[in-house]
Amino acid sequence: MAVGGVRVGFPLVRRVVTLLDGSVVPIDRPILRADDLGVLRGDGVFEALLVSGGETRDLAEHLQRLATSAATLELAIPDAAAWRRGVDAAIGAWASDDDLVLRLIATRGPDGGGPPTCFVIGGEVPDGPRRQRDGVRVRVLGRGMSGDRFAALAHLLPSAKSLSYAVNMAMVRAAKAAGDDDVVLVDPDGFVLEGPTSTVVVAHGRTLTTPPPPGILDGVTVRRLFAAAGDAGWRTDIGALHVDELTGADGAWLVSSIRQMAPIVAIDGVARPAGIAHAELAALLAAPRPA
Amino acid sequence: MAVGGVRVGFPLVRRVVTLLDGSVVPIDRPILRADDLGVLRGDGVFEALLVSGGETRDLAEHLQRLATSAATLELAIPDAAAWRRGVDAAIGAWASDDDLVLRLIATRGPDGGGPPTCFVIGGEVPDGPRRQRDGVRVRVLGRGMSGDRFAALAHLLPSAKSLSYAVNMAMVRAAKAAGDDDVVLVDPDGFVLEGPTSTVVVAHGRTLTTPPPPGILDGVTVRRLFAAAGDAGWRTDIGALHVDELTGADGAWLVSSIRQMAPIVAIDGVARPAGIAHAELAALLAAPRPA
Repeated sequence: MAVGGVRVGFPLVRRVVTLLDGSVVPIDRPILRADDLGVLRGDGVFEALLVSGGETRDLAEHLQRLATSAATLELAIPDAAAWRRGVDAAIGAWASDDDLVLRLIATRGPDGGGPPTCFVIGGEVPDGPRRQRDGVRVRVLGRGMSGDRFAALAHLLPSAKSLSYAVNMAMVRAAKAAGDDDVVLVDPDGFVLEGPTSTVVVAHGRTLTTPPPPGILDGVTVRRLFAAAGDAGWRTDIGALHVDELTGADGAWLVSSIRQMAPIVAIDGVARPAGIAHAELAALLAAPRPA
Repeated sequence: MAVGGVRVGFPLVRRVVTLLDGSVVPIDRPILRADDLGVLRGDGVFEALLVSGGETRDLAEHLQRLATSAATLELAIPDAAAWRRGVDAAIGAWASDDDLVLRLIATRGPDGGGPPTCFVIGGEVPDGPRRQRDGVRVRVLGRGMSGDRFAALAHLLPSAKSLSYAVNMAMVRAAKAAGDDDVVLVDPDGFVLEGPTSTVVVAHGRTLTTPPPPGILDGVTVRRLFAAAGDAGWRTDIGALHVDELTGADGAWLVSSIRQMAPIVAIDGVARPAGIAHAELAALLAAPRPA
């Protein structure tokens, strides 16, 4: 059986793992050595994307961002064709109509030399992001510096999606400890940066706005949303966004490949309406795009 | 044979891997699953320590800091006795008079549940830290915020030694690209914070100074150095240290378990003397401490 299942309490967690030669690895077979720098140092890059109805979403864009992240970390990784082999094998092994979340992983490989460790791992959309599609309560947390300052410090890897996400995970734990679901990060002056695993978008009337690029990750799904919304007559804008604007906006969302558009329904415990445009925009985002 | 050898170009890199039940794992046998959160998210904690003449250095202190890091990440890890089993097994399997560097690794384990993945991995002192003992050229890089600000943002994990070290590694690459060996991090006002994998210490006359704790990692080896130097009549001080003071100090060092005391011999390409007190202090640090 191609898809490994591992029972962790309840329910059965389904996972599929493939290598870039297209081979399928049982989930319970270890594939990383103890000296892999992905483990010892969180030293590597990744992407996560959605497969819906057997079709990948924005695979070319995710592969481009993976290549950009790898270049930022000075990490030589296999080419797009190799990743596509791994992705195709994972989709083939999934054997389910359920949406599939794929992660493309490249570590720096064994300490002391050796090729990067590359694989694709897939599974169902996790409960958390799935529930966020119906509404996400966010906690506002500081990142301690402005996007411009972060972007100017290249050694902090401001625009790379590295495997070093312990802080991103700690932010989400902090939100959950406060009774919330996720986080909006702000700079010391209260300007919105991004979520730990998402991009922030707001609507004012028929205008969508997302914060400017310096110091935040380039959002693949926001680009898709803006293209689709633009075709449907929305104005789209990149501009500074103060956290106080989130409360009064006609709509506010966390956007990412996995959660798609999660309407923000509470900010630091204060409820806000999901926004009248959510259904329209979510449908635009979900629709196939012209090639 | 207990110690796995893997030839990576030249020379042979020796590695020993043990689990916390005391069993030895060949280095080339993978032990981490593709869905291990240590790989997918850099989500876990670690310590690195030196074993010299078959004796661990400051093992109790490293185990204490590992426990503190794990608590910060809300990660339940095995107790000290279990780690000591792994450490003892690694030392037994090393079968060499050469100094041994041990890393204690605990990841959050497989995604979706399961126990943390814990192991001990050892090898020779790497060439880089070994050479730094004769002098290290440092590049000064910004961390973008003060130690106080960093310390106040608990969700950034300011005092935990997590596996998410991609940025620390990028800093060292940036230094090497500039022709240097390592990095001193400063805040926006030029006050010294720490190195990416070390603590900064300076000498003025017979006084040693290291920067204050907020927002930097508590240095096990600095504490050992300060205790040994204090016993030998040095004054030891914790206080703000501006980067401009590094140049004129009677001595300046990067201190860590692996490199011990690396005298700073150049700052941003400008040479400075290694300092007359280096031999005395290095000997004090290397000497056995009363239990």
